[in-house]
Amino acid sequence: MEPYRDALMDLDSNLDIDIWPDVKSKDRVSFAVAWKQPKNQFSQYPNLKVISSLGAGADHLLKDTSIPQHVALTRVVAPTLTEQMCDFSVLSVLAIIRRFHDYNKQQVWADWKPRIHYNKKDLMVGVMGLGKIGKKVAERLAGNGFNVSGWSNSKKSIPNVVTYSKEHLDPFLTATNILVCLLPLTDETKEILNLSLFKKLNSPGFLVNAARGSHLVEEDLIYALDMGLLNHAALDVFQKEPLPEAHSFWGRDKITITPHIASITEPGEVAELILDNYKRMRSNIELLNRVDRYKGY
Amino acid sequence: MEPYRDALMDLDSNLDIDIWPDVKSKDRVSFAVAWKQPKNQFSQYPNLKVISSLGAGADHLLKDTSIPQHVALTRVVAPTLTEQMCDFSVLSVLAIIRRFHDYNKQQVWADWKPRIHYNKKDLMVGVMGLGKIGKKVAERLAGNGFNVSGWSNSKKSIPNVVTYSKEHLDPFLTATNILVCLLPLTDETKEILNLSLFKKLNSPGFLVNAARGSHLVEEDLIYALDMGLLNHAALDVFQKEPLPEAHSFWGRDKITITPHIASITEPGEVAELILDNYKRMRSNIELLNRVDRYKGY
Repeated sequence: MEPYRDALMDLDSNLDIDIWPDVKSKDRVSFAVAWKQPKNQFSQYPNLKVISSLGAGADHLLKDTSIPQHVALTRVVAPTLTEQMCDFSVLSVLAIIRRFHDYNKQQVWADWKPRIHYNKKDLMVGVMGLGKIGKKVAERLAGNGFNVSGWSNSKKSIPNVVTYSKEHLDPFLTATNILVCLLPLTDETKEILNLSLFKKLNSPGFLVNAARGSHLVEEDLIYALDMGLLNHAALDVFQKEPLPEAHSFWGRDKITITPHIASITEPGEVAELILDNYKRMRSNIELLNRVDRYKGY
Repeated sequence: MEPYRDALMDLDSNLDIDIWPDVKSKDRVSFAVAWKQPKNQFSQYPNLKVISSLGAGADHLLKDTSIPQHVALTRVVAPTLTEQMCDFSVLSVLAIIRRFHDYNKQQVWADWKPRIHYNKKDLMVGVMGLGKIGKKVAERLAGNGFNVSGWSNSKKSIPNVVTYSKEHLDPFLTATNILVCLLPLTDETKEILNLSLFKKLNSPGFLVNAARGSHLVEEDLIYALDMGLLNHAALDVFQKEPLPEAHSFWGRDKITITPHIASITEPGEVAELILDNYKRMRSNIELLNRVDRYKGY
């Protein structure tokens, strides 16, 4: 947490910041910043009003039932974080259709072999999750000439993107070739990337998961790749991170692994957004990027 | 040439097409289609009016001095070819800044190691060549949030792209980090990617060559990478293709090799453009995509 404390102090040297577990007085804490915190801590802070996640995900806060209901939860949706997710998605989708994974392997063997590429006009890229990040990713993919559709809880309207609402998951999937998962992790979306879903995708089928490892049933992915239901998967997140050295994903030609780098938070930018919400709390102004406990994100 | 003949015949079954060397009567040939043809052929066709290259490059025609001066030269600038070059350029530049080459190698060793990425806001992507293809590539890169500049023979005006004309090569280079070469191959641009040029690039420096192998002095690239003048190069074209198995490029971590696949012509689309120019010749209408022998492209 030190880089974040330093970045906050750079912005406002009058802030009074403790880093857990070195908290001088629990009574004095009104605003907390947390990322994958140990459970059952927050009930000990009688004057706590707001907890901010350090990133775009808030699942670590939502599953901590010890947090009193009156404490507001917020998350950080940094512009560069969204930009990075756009870049990662475009890069992963382009690498899939231009078969860069094959060319990377061929280079090792000095093997000059042009391959048949997928034509983007023959494929539909389907974005799961059209929140602040997903919406931008869908727009960016469309700007790169892809056919793009999107699925979200409530139906969104995005130029050049075919959108589906919650109950129309099946028609969304059957029209999708390249599925890009950017969903928040909730009870409903946990393990949503499973065999039954992969079977519904249009052929050829591909998966990009840049959301959370728990969205994916890892054994189902292996089966879907082995059975040819999916042609390739680009994964940035995993059930267990770091991905254990003995995990079978590492050695698979049809899986591209990146070490949870789709978007990396930059302390200075995150600090600005956290400080903004801290000031809003102090002034009793509406908080930005509130997490809805009922919706789960 | 068979796929191209078939595609042309699909469009117009009245066409009369011979494939060299099986030419029934040299007198009857008015329009030729050529790609890396043997030299000293075309003087034998007394009624030849037009030769079309099969791709966007016409260097194979321009260096064939046996082609009579009254024969018009054309080339094919297919929309999907331009689109593919946009995709290849965006993919290569994103892969560089997000260090996908490192992650690909790490996957082989089951090595989970997030790396510091380059921030696109700190870098300038410089496109060499702003013809029909280069202009679109520059626009697409800008649409993906990159700082983009471009250099061309005559100064072009492109929204959100800083453009330089021929005499301002040095200021263009010193401001550029990621150099994307899309130049036509001419006497002036041959070996333009050499040590003296690499030394002028801003640091960190990167090269993407999707134009012609002869633009690059291959030994100079090795030296520039070894000396740290350049951090990485993505090469799709080479002096000799297929790249020989023993070539030192294959084994280099700092070079990404693709087998001349940045854009692959699709016979049906190419046939439409060739047929259009054939009809224009027959009707004495101005030809599309004429090659200027003086300019050399």
